[in-house]
Amino acid sequence: MEIPGFTTIGIIGGAGQMGQWFKEYFESLGHTVLISGRKTELTWQDLAEQCQVVIISLPLDVSIDMARQVGPLMNKDQLLMDMCSMKHDICQAMKESTQAQVIGTHPLFGPSTAGMAGQNVIVCPMGEGPWLPWLESQLEAKGAVVTITDGYTHDRNMAVVQALTHFMTISFGETLLQLGVDPKEIRPYATPIFRLKLGLLGRMFAQDTELYRNLICKNPMASEVLDQFLSSANEVKNNICHAPEIMTAIDAFLGTFPEQGMIESDACLETLAKFKERAM
Amino acid sequence: MEIPGFTTIGIIGGAGQMGQWFKEYFESLGHTVLISGRKTELTWQDLAEQCQVVIISLPLDVSIDMARQVGPLMNKDQLLMDMCSMKHDICQAMKESTQAQVIGTHPLFGPSTAGMAGQNVIVCPMGEGPWLPWLESQLEAKGAVVTITDGYTHDRNMAVVQALTHFMTISFGETLLQLGVDPKEIRPYATPIFRLKLGLLGRMFAQDTELYRNLICKNPMASEVLDQFLSSANEVKNNICHAPEIMTAIDAFLGTFPEQGMIESDACLETLAKFKERAM
Repeated sequence: MEIPGFTTIGIIGGAGQMGQWFKEYFESLGHTVLISGRKTELTWQDLAEQCQVVIISLPLDVSIDMARQVGPLMNKDQLLMDMCSMKHDICQAMKESTQAQVIGTHPLFGPSTAGMAGQNVIVCPMGEGPWLPWLESQLEAKGAVVTITDGYTHDRNMAVVQALTHFMTISFGETLLQLGVDPKEIRPYATPIFRLKLGLLGRMFAQDTELYRNLICKNPMASEVLDQFLSSANEVKNNICHAPEIMTAIDAFLGTFPEQGMIESDACLETLAKFKERAM
Repeated sequence: MEIPGFTTIGIIGGAGQMGQWFKEYFESLGHTVLISGRKTELTWQDLAEQCQVVIISLPLDVSIDMARQVGPLMNKDQLLMDMCSMKHDICQAMKESTQAQVIGTHPLFGPSTAGMAGQNVIVCPMGEGPWLPWLESQLEAKGAVVTITDGYTHDRNMAVVQALTHFMTISFGETLLQLGVDPKEIRPYATPIFRLKLGLLGRMFAQDTELYRNLICKNPMASEVLDQFLSSANEVKNNICHAPEIMTAIDAFLGTFPEQGMIESDACLETLAKFKERAM
């Protein structure tokens, strides 16, 4: 089987924010994109019939159900994909349900992202086939950094990348709430770094908080990582003031990484300083 | 007493990074700046004699000692300032030691900051005098956001703005160390937000970690704030998955702030996406 230059791609849940983002993305590469959703004329059955590539762009639970329904309608020349934030279970569900080639993907960015350049995308192929090099070339066409791995490794990393990150932000918000520290009132006292952390807290609550909660609660490996964080935070609290070697150990662990972090965070803080609303 | 358009400003510790930053800043406004340090010909005694304004730019402990030494050499027409990250104790020490006007200041940014525009500066005047409007005009000349408060209020806010912020970052680093998650290896899995948090971790360890440690350990109000964080983080861990109302409460507390946070963090994340080193 040979894949033509331009294909017809169907996005189930294509009216959602990420679905729309990828509709525009694939259209910008010259493909035809059809979408199905609650209010569309086309159904997901139509997409399975009319498209060479079918992408499930729905919440995790619904995606697994959809994989089991749409999978059997597809044949070995087609590609079935998903875009969930967790990969192991959905990849298994897709693979078990279809003869089509199956590739799980996780675009590691949200729908407010301006473009694909420099964005990370994880790809979890379930078996071999011609669609994997095609997908890589489509993503890399506009500068994505594609990493191929398996669902388990992906989910374990997400327990740190997503669950821990968002847990720290929620805990920060809960602390401000308990202390009664209003973000607007404390802004004139903000350092650039504190201002950035406040901004990330605001960012979470400007969006769908259920999504963030699910990234913690639906990852079976998250609980262990959060326990480690609580234990580490306690250790830091107990040692930081009389045993400074706790800092030395982290420093040694980070190696040469801090140089890169300094450059990148400097650029962010400069961006932040340009906002006139500083004092609100 | 009338303050002339251009003054002579002395910076004790003026060879340090912040001292150099403010030397260039005041020179850009047309003032003459003299500095003293371990390797300078001029001594701090010389500065007290020759300058109208003397700024102590040294670590906190040393600043308090210096205030007690330099204060008695100054007269009521002069201005004595400091730039420590803690304000209550140093302001008291300056006030008790001198007849000069005393103003504690805390520039809420580091020496890698490109310019004064949009930066927060806290000013703690100890009594009245003509130097306060002068100082405000000098800082605001290039766009600083000046907030006038007392040392106690400042230090209490810094327990959140500095101690808590840096504590969370150190605890994050300790967690990665304990989990064996190498920042470089996990970068291809990073979301923009995780990448930003990694960058802030790197930033801390690219600098003087003693400074960050002191911002936690020398603030008498930090311990209470860190305890609240640990307690809140435990509460979040225990409730997030079965009692989503913990998110609703934070959301209600934040009010309209998230909109601003979304705008600012979007701009930062766009800046970050421009770095070609993305995959390292």
